[in-house]
Amino acid sequence: MTVNLPYGRVYNFNAGPAALPVVVLEQVQAELLNYKGTGMSVMEMSHRSKAFEGILHAAESDLRALYGIGADYAVIFMQGGASLQFTAVPANLRGAGQSADYLVTGSWSKAAYKEAKRHGATRVAWDGGPDGFVHIPRNGEASIDAQAAYAYVCSNETVNGLAYYDLPHVPAEVPLVCDASSEFVSRPLDVARYGLLYGGAQKNAGPAGVTVVIIRRDLLERTPEGLPPMLDYKLLSEHGSLYNTPPCFGIYVTGLVFQWILAQGGLTAIAEANRRKSTLVYQAIDASGGFYRGHARPDSRSDMNVTFRLPDAALEEQFAKTAKAEGLEGLKGHRSVGGIRASLYNAVPLDAASLLADFMREFQRRNG
Amino acid sequence: MTVNLPYGRVYNFNAGPAALPVVVLEQVQAELLNYKGTGMSVMEMSHRSKAFEGILHAAESDLRALYGIGADYAVIFMQGGASLQFTAVPANLRGAGQSADYLVTGSWSKAAYKEAKRHGATRVAWDGGPDGFVHIPRNGEASIDAQAAYAYVCSNETVNGLAYYDLPHVPAEVPLVCDASSEFVSRPLDVARYGLLYGGAQKNAGPAGVTVVIIRRDLLERTPEGLPPMLDYKLLSEHGSLYNTPPCFGIYVTGLVFQWILAQGGLTAIAEANRRKSTLVYQAIDASGGFYRGHARPDSRSDMNVTFRLPDAALEEQFAKTAKAEGLEGLKGHRSVGGIRASLYNAVPLDAASLLADFMREFQRRNG
Repeated sequence: MTVNLPYGRVYNFNAGPAALPVVVLEQVQAELLNYKGTGMSVMEMSHRSKAFEGILHAAESDLRALYGIGADYAVIFMQGGASLQFTAVPANLRGAGQSADYLVTGSWSKAAYKEAKRHGATRVAWDGGPDGFVHIPRNGEASIDAQAAYAYVCSNETVNGLAYYDLPHVPAEVPLVCDASSEFVSRPLDVARYGLLYGGAQKNAGPAGVTVVIIRRDLLERTPEGLPPMLDYKLLSEHGSLYNTPPCFGIYVTGLVFQWILAQGGLTAIAEANRRKSTLVYQAIDASGGFYRGHARPDSRSDMNVTFRLPDAALEEQFAKTAKAEGLEGLKGHRSVGGIRASLYNAVPLDAASLLADFMREFQRRNG
Repeated sequence: MTVNLPYGRVYNFNAGPAALPVVVLEQVQAELLNYKGTGMSVMEMSHRSKAFEGILHAAESDLRALYGIGADYAVIFMQGGASLQFTAVPANLRGAGQSADYLVTGSWSKAAYKEAKRHGATRVAWDGGPDGFVHIPRNGEASIDAQAAYAYVCSNETVNGLAYYDLPHVPAEVPLVCDASSEFVSRPLDVARYGLLYGGAQKNAGPAGVTVVIIRRDLLERTPEGLPPMLDYKLLSEHGSLYNTPPCFGIYVTGLVFQWILAQGGLTAIAEANRRKSTLVYQAIDASGGFYRGHARPDSRSDMNVTFRLPDAALEEQFAKTAKAEGLEGLKGHRSVGGIRASLYNAVPLDAASLLADFMREFQRRNG
């Protein structure tokens, strides 16, 4: 069994940067030296040109269509990844003397918590660490301070392979802030339930270097005077993501991916496709009689990042290596936790998940 | 006279994002769906993969070769553009109670000054504003405080069209910080004269979204505890620009441009080519009998951005429009100052400058 794909491509299970739709890459390739008769590449275009403004506006309006984002929310295209958001969220939303609540469910919410704590009062509202980050809190398990400036969740923990399916109950007056990076545009969400939702493009939506922030407009009034411009949601929103030169090419590719998702039938259709893929891999785990051990508790299993262990580290190494030789790339777990991780983002086709499940059965037959 | 170029491309005088070398774009296009047999695009590649690490290391070592950067300097690839550097420079380099000196020579050094001033003691060491930003200080004109945390210059003012050819005299103990964004890798510089030199890629070196910082390693010790990670030179340097996911694709394109510059003969050859281009346009200005009025005083003329006026705004509008119709794009001056601006970055060919000079003479003949 060896993958045989157009352009000599492999099946790409990278956790991010990650697989992009082939048709999007083909379009980028075709337009690379001359974008729609402008006589130049998108990389060479003024960010104040009509052509780029068209790209930016289309990206925003397609994202609004995908999620059903209302006019009471602003959309901002930023740089700096989640790491910059870890600073920006408390800097903008946590007023003087206020505290923020963090639900710590894995590596990324923990990193966000640590950064918030360096700059002000921060409370752990729930901590999955003692259990080894194997599940997210069930409703009722996490109790949010009604005085908190906001409650923070990471809705999909890329390293640990956990996802929220029911959001925690949050008091009405506390905005819910969500790092949706590794599930961004992978399933429908009720944006109205969030105060702020952000995602890096480099998982489901585009290349690294673009972060999309969706923020309820009333929260923009919390931004204090004197923030560094690159952290200032209010300023960046007022300038329509054009306060300074944005990462134009990344926004262009991200916009093409939004169009591709719409063409697939939107987020409901994409979510169903994603669920079919993850089901194939989780079934291979569950049917292995313990040879493969899933990391996440079944009620918290991510459709995006399927994490599991083999009987020992040597077998895990061999698994990733053999898979790679057969055209299944990027299966090594995050260096901080080891094991195997299969990321099944939007652009990973069903065939890839199916072949991976076959490979898992075959590998177990030979090594189990 | 109409431009007739391969791929239906135009001559691109944009101020940034700006023209890229056609051969670089062709290589990017060829490798877009499968980078060197990896089976994936650079956009889809893990930033911790061997392939991407190769790209990152090559970009750094080619930049070191171009500028002759010594081992006592670190190179950091960042996001956020100059706007982020405006915050990062004082946040890292200006200690408690210290003041920094700014030489204000145009829009960009002024913006840097304003941002620095919001966060601490900042002094204007020289101000070209009263003269309308038509020249940079001659040596001796600007007096730098020997106690300053650093002295800050913008070595090429993109909006105003000014460049430094002699750096100001700075006391030995005061590090010189330079925003070289719009002249980055366009001419040789003696890096040893700078404490910190930074440039956005989107003028001479690549797409928007990548900023390269060259910093003398001893200055990394000034970084205080508790800075936001995305501003922290020390942290980012310690992680070799891989603290978080970098803008991988932009770094890849930037690296290809570095290789292209090396293939052109390096910075000396590129600087000569750039000078030939700007000379053609300045000659057209100087020979126009006042129809075209150069903005910069001759001793401060930038080779990168040639700024000039016509007798009135209506003629300037017509100039830009007529030029565009003939395939000469991006000649409108910055919206804050008006007029005409021809940016002649590395990838703008001599033919483009030559055609522009012809166009200027022809336009004057018809409208002068």
